[in-house]
Amino acid sequence: MDSKILLAHGSGGRLSHNLIKDFIQLFRNQILEKMDDSAVFDLNGRVAFTTDSYVVNPIFFPGGDIGQLAVCGTINDLSMCGATPLYISLALIIEEGLPMSVLKQITSSIQTVVKDTGVKVVTGDTKVVNQGSADKLFINTAGIGLISEGIDISGTNAKPGDKIILSGAIGDHGIAVMAQREGLRFKILVKSDCAPLNTLVADMLKVSEKIHCLRDPTRGGLATTLNELTMQSKVGINIEEEKVPVHESVRAACEFLGFDPLYVANEGKLVAIVPARNAEKILKAMQQNLYGKESTIIGEVVAEHPGIVTMKTILGTSRIVDMLSGELLPRIC
Amino acid sequence: MDSKILLAHGSGGRLSHNLIKDFIQLFRNQILEKMDDSAVFDLNGRVAFTTDSYVVNPIFFPGGDIGQLAVCGTINDLSMCGATPLYISLALIIEEGLPMSVLKQITSSIQTVVKDTGVKVVTGDTKVVNQGSADKLFINTAGIGLISEGIDISGTNAKPGDKIILSGAIGDHGIAVMAQREGLRFKILVKSDCAPLNTLVADMLKVSEKIHCLRDPTRGGLATTLNELTMQSKVGINIEEEKVPVHESVRAACEFLGFDPLYVANEGKLVAIVPARNAEKILKAMQQNLYGKESTIIGEVVAEHPGIVTMKTILGTSRIVDMLSGELLPRIC
Repeated sequence: MDSKILLAHGSGGRLSHNLIKDFIQLFRNQILEKMDDSAVFDLNGRVAFTTDSYVVNPIFFPGGDIGQLAVCGTINDLSMCGATPLYISLALIIEEGLPMSVLKQITSSIQTVVKDTGVKVVTGDTKVVNQGSADKLFINTAGIGLISEGIDISGTNAKPGDKIILSGAIGDHGIAVMAQREGLRFKILVKSDCAPLNTLVADMLKVSEKIHCLRDPTRGGLATTLNELTMQSKVGINIEEEKVPVHESVRAACEFLGFDPLYVANEGKLVAIVPARNAEKILKAMQQNLYGKESTIIGEVVAEHPGIVTMKTILGTSRIVDMLSGELLPRIC
Repeated sequence: MDSKILLAHGSGGRLSHNLIKDFIQLFRNQILEKMDDSAVFDLNGRVAFTTDSYVVNPIFFPGGDIGQLAVCGTINDLSMCGATPLYISLALIIEEGLPMSVLKQITSSIQTVVKDTGVKVVTGDTKVVNQGSADKLFINTAGIGLISEGIDISGTNAKPGDKIILSGAIGDHGIAVMAQREGLRFKILVKSDCAPLNTLVADMLKVSEKIHCLRDPTRGGLATTLNELTMQSKVGINIEEEKVPVHESVRAACEFLGFDPLYVANEGKLVAIVPARNAEKILKAMQQNLYGKESTIIGEVVAEHPGIVTMKTILGTSRIVDMLSGELLPRIC
């Protein structure tokens, strides 16, 4: 029989301890095994530090689950600063009654990402709330990474003339979660693109340290990310609609649902803003990485219209691409 | 009219941005203001890294609120490794419909702790879930601190002969939250002891670096913390009931409710295990700190009965103090 999570699993007593021991077994490493109030390790240099909570609904979707999403998301936030992800924390808020088998499935998919990427889970926390006070499972991950000397990647660094590279087709994650939640069936199953982008960034940095900005277009989609970058760097951005890859299945789903793929969330894509002279070699390096095969240059940075993103449409006209202003898809990550 | 949190505040679009701008204004510092995917700063040495989620119900209680609790809790977890707390992350999961005034009150009490302790909020995240999918507000904080050379504090370091110091009376936080939640009124209002313990630990380390273990007895209370330490260090612990301070109001409330104060949560207390020869000077330093006035030696570490805590009762008998085994008070932190 499948046992369930009880309130006592979060009380700090014996059941909490047994649960924590299972986690330590799963994520085994010397730092975690000490079981003190904090993880302790040596660190020297420029550090990147980030956090994200994950509340995606449903917790399982085609192409991933909330556990994989939480670890990949934090790995990606560190990677977007050019940092090598090293250590992550894992904090669970569990609704009383969650089947233990579900928790095991989620933590095992976290273990897979951890093994594949070499990051270490070094500290954690488990809280349990009464039935109805949370929805199954929320996960927070915080992460620490190290940035090598010579790397200076920030949303404030875009310069007029820079090229904008997108690492692949947009909208997969948002549509996959949405379809699963609403029980929609499309001709072709849309899978989330949820993936760790640390090796993609490492491959890019190998061919050129001169990358100005990196960002993963998650909530709010590509449109919102590009708008953020124009505001942070006080520049304009022009992109071309026909250059932005969108999988046929996602395009069809978006048309059916009345969504614009530019605003739909991604979890395994990045936008890079790079000096024009390095754009081709960075693009080639990206295309050779598993997670960058469909990389393409979608536009450029301009001095005109700072804070504004414009797009040359397929019809040849030009329009402003605004930031997401309302609510498109709640609980997408 | 009091506006409310909408799902769109968590969508990554314009409302999210406005909310984040308010936070940046509140917690102003150069690292946070960069608004990149990760905070970036230099760090050299032994690092402590910790995380905790807070789901306390109700979110306001006598002596504190969920915001103060979240920041103090992470400051304390870092302090318990002898680290100076430097940077924290702040991740909010908000239930749709939360009044904006409530959020402002919580973030303003976070701001107060941050100012008083000198830690910096350098990165954050905001998610909003539909009404009924969370209970008002959950907060995750992760923290980073630096440990000076020569300090080696761990739950594994207790040695037979060491003295056990408790920094004050136990049970205040648990009873304060419980009474507020259940609408109980006692003769004397019990206030949570929620407090940042970084200066207390700093004052202790000034008089002696030779502190073996530090731990704050939160969930599961003093009894659970002492049991953890016996297991980690493979030693026994003997304490004396009459030496353990319990405020009269808490004792009365516990009697009424059928609780043992040894198992009730604290949020501003610590247990220190120190070599006998340094115990008196460390105790004096503690008693001179605002948060250690009632500090007292409650017992000692022994080689006998490893993994077991015994207590000499007021009646003169001796009994085993076990770890909390069931659920005492859900959602206490």
